[in-house]
Amino acid sequence: MNQPSTDHTRAERHADWVERDRTRIWHGFTQMSTFAENAPIIVERAEGRELIDVDGWRYLDAISSLWVTTLGHNLPELNEAIVDQLGRVSHTIMLGHGNKATIELAEALTPRVPVADPRFLFASDGAAAVEQALKIAFQYWVNQGVEGRDTYLSFGGAYHGDTIGSVSVGADGFGTDIFNPLRFDVVRAPGFDDPACMTEAVRMIAEHRDSLAAVVVEPLVQGAAGIQVLGAEHFLPLAAACREHDVLLLVDEVATGFGRTGTLFASDQIRSLGEFAPDLMAIGKGLTGGYLPMSATVAAGHVANAFLGPDLGPNTLYHGHSFSGNAASAAAALAHLRLFDEWDVLSQVQSAAAHMADALAAQVAALPQVRQVRQCGLMVGIELAPPADGLLWGRKTAKSCVQQGVLVRPLGDVIVLMPILTSTSDEIERMVAATSAAIAQLG
Amino acid sequence: MNQPSTDHTRAERHADWVERDRTRIWHGFTQMSTFAENAPIIVERAEGRELIDVDGWRYLDAISSLWVTTLGHNLPELNEAIVDQLGRVSHTIMLGHGNKATIELAEALTPRVPVADPRFLFASDGAAAVEQALKIAFQYWVNQGVEGRDTYLSFGGAYHGDTIGSVSVGADGFGTDIFNPLRFDVVRAPGFDDPACMTEAVRMIAEHRDSLAAVVVEPLVQGAAGIQVLGAEHFLPLAAACREHDVLLLVDEVATGFGRTGTLFASDQIRSLGEFAPDLMAIGKGLTGGYLPMSATVAAGHVANAFLGPDLGPNTLYHGHSFSGNAASAAAALAHLRLFDEWDVLSQVQSAAAHMADALAAQVAALPQVRQVRQCGLMVGIELAPPADGLLWGRKTAKSCVQQGVLVRPLGDVIVLMPILTSTSDEIERMVAATSAAIAQLG
Repeated sequence: MNQPSTDHTRAERHADWVERDRTRIWHGFTQMSTFAENAPIIVERAEGRELIDVDGWRYLDAISSLWVTTLGHNLPELNEAIVDQLGRVSHTIMLGHGNKATIELAEALTPRVPVADPRFLFASDGAAAVEQALKIAFQYWVNQGVEGRDTYLSFGGAYHGDTIGSVSVGADGFGTDIFNPLRFDVVRAPGFDDPACMTEAVRMIAEHRDSLAAVVVEPLVQGAAGIQVLGAEHFLPLAAACREHDVLLLVDEVATGFGRTGTLFASDQIRSLGEFAPDLMAIGKGLTGGYLPMSATVAAGHVANAFLGPDLGPNTLYHGHSFSGNAASAAAALAHLRLFDEWDVLSQVQSAAAHMADALAAQVAALPQVRQVRQCGLMVGIELAPPADGLLWGRKTAKSCVQQGVLVRPLGDVIVLMPILTSTSDEIERMVAATSAAIAQLG
Repeated sequence: MNQPSTDHTRAERHADWVERDRTRIWHGFTQMSTFAENAPIIVERAEGRELIDVDGWRYLDAISSLWVTTLGHNLPELNEAIVDQLGRVSHTIMLGHGNKATIELAEALTPRVPVADPRFLFASDGAAAVEQALKIAFQYWVNQGVEGRDTYLSFGGAYHGDTIGSVSVGADGFGTDIFNPLRFDVVRAPGFDDPACMTEAVRMIAEHRDSLAAVVVEPLVQGAAGIQVLGAEHFLPLAAACREHDVLLLVDEVATGFGRTGTLFASDQIRSLGEFAPDLMAIGKGLTGGYLPMSATVAAGHVANAFLGPDLGPNTLYHGHSFSGNAASAAAALAHLRLFDEWDVLSQVQSAAAHMADALAAQVAALPQVRQVRQCGLMVGIELAPPADGLLWGRKTAKSCVQQGVLVRPLGDVIVLMPILTSTSDEIERMVAATSAAIAQLG
């Protein structure tokens, strides 16, 4: 167990790095005036599923370094794939030209994605992939001469990223409301915490069919809403309504993709029950195993074909990021897909998820400080039940976990456990034990 | 000279790769129905300033692979820095936690940026860095209880990226107009092609002072507008108006930063003439030498301080991308800064830019097919003068250059030359000769 307070040399060195960090870095979603108080880790290196800070202290990465790490840190196999590509070329222009690494990645993804005849438009930030999908959905109708398809249906509690288009389809809350003068309006269905959300969404699609460019949804799990889980069967009526009323279906698999929910994509669980064919999909995070920045918009062929026309003509999508199709990132992503199969990672996820469920039931669910435990695959939200506002129970729990050598990151008063997909039973046990002990101290 | 049409084996192999690419990749700003006709290169590797395609054909990279490459491709020094970091860790969470590589990068950037007491909020796509800056400018006023500062002044011809916030401050054209129902309104000054643009902008700042959160501007060069150049002295009244009327000044140096205009930042040339202190700056492209995706929003300390407050309180910036502060990208960027100094790259840029100016004057400017040649440092726009619309002179010129072994990418009928900063005199000469020959064949 890490106990920084008993090691003065370490504490001073750590404090120095925290001060250097705080002086120059602006951390996202972080109140910088209290950054230093919340047990920040300054990472220097990592091995497998452990992060190692500037003083050599080790932390089990129970948050997959912001939900991105799939197989583990600093793996020779992924490093070698990137090094090999660096020895060829890191990056070349994708506007009007291509690179071999990106073609090979797109071909490897093709049979694996839940999108028919897929086309891949790459970017680096997940939000950019969502923005690309939103613009493609919008222009799809314009290119066909259909007027008035200028809004989207999305859900309460939804999170799709932080750029203006993304926070427009994202829900209120998360600090987004103050940007309302910049956000465009959408048709808003209830969040996944409302059992009637899909019934209501289906009704709204019928009502707004003439103005909807697309329905935007996180399949199975609303992550930033605190891991709100909705069963796969609920998404079939949504897809059916999109088909019936001729509205595009855009799934945001940035968080749920690449094994996180127990299947390669969350959409796969819905497709196993019935017809569910997304017209557009956004992916990111685990695409490169969490090593290098890469995201992509996946468009069905029938969507992409609506953009064909004369060169330099109005049907073209005038959107493209400088680092789109970065070859080093593509090489990482390609190697990641190969390892994902070779290591049978989905079986590991299913086994670890089952172990997680048992451990949570035994050690966490019954604690009086816990309101609800939610889980889908290896996405876990433990909603605390503080007796009053402002007690910062989420922060206190996370801080205690860090002091026990387990890195977690809360969403308000929801403790999120997001283990690396290859986590062992012992590691799952350590995460749950640390979390349970931390929560038991509250109140 | 490359002559693909005379080598049948090569032509077939090339055609096969182009077909594989076209089948699965959606290229940004590219009409995919004519992708294969426009001499696309499929890159496999690169050496220095040359790209090498899947058949071993070599092309001088006269576009810096979408304006990002600074020192050259596949350099041992930059590769080693990335490899060294891969052997530690590629990526860790930046929400509430830090990593050593990113701190060291921020500290190295601090004395080099034209922003006082800078704080660095990292992202991966340049558009995301712009979006972060826009949101920070907006919330800066909200946090201080100032109401109504909910719009921006930006310029005709401006390009700030393709996400919805970025295309809102960006100008009409570039295919943005169709997204008007999603874009927020801004106060629009004339473009740099209008000599009165800054006089008018200064007037508009006074007129709209109570509603402007920030003025957004590309210093010295509007890139996507066709390399529209405006002298440094014109930006001093703009900065003075921002100070006088208490409006934030946001400079977009994504394209102009990292030596492209002859100084490390374009803002440096303005600062050498008088007071010019950006409150916010967006950087990207050359930040990592063009190797790995990374961008950043640089905020002055006095701006960042307006976001301090209680933990989880409303003053916090609730914005953060998964790959913010990627350690591998940070290591590349840090090594890049060191090499930039050691190799005295700015001197090389100035020398190459002078050579470029001479060559353009001798071989291009007087051609009857050329309307105007514009240049700032190593950003060059050659505006063609086609006698009618739809002749695709830009496309034809670029295609001819590629067939001569020089990769250029046009902006409509403006041929853009954007050499890698370390280009030799011979290489500058080759680019200009190929371009001149291509243009001379037109009409």
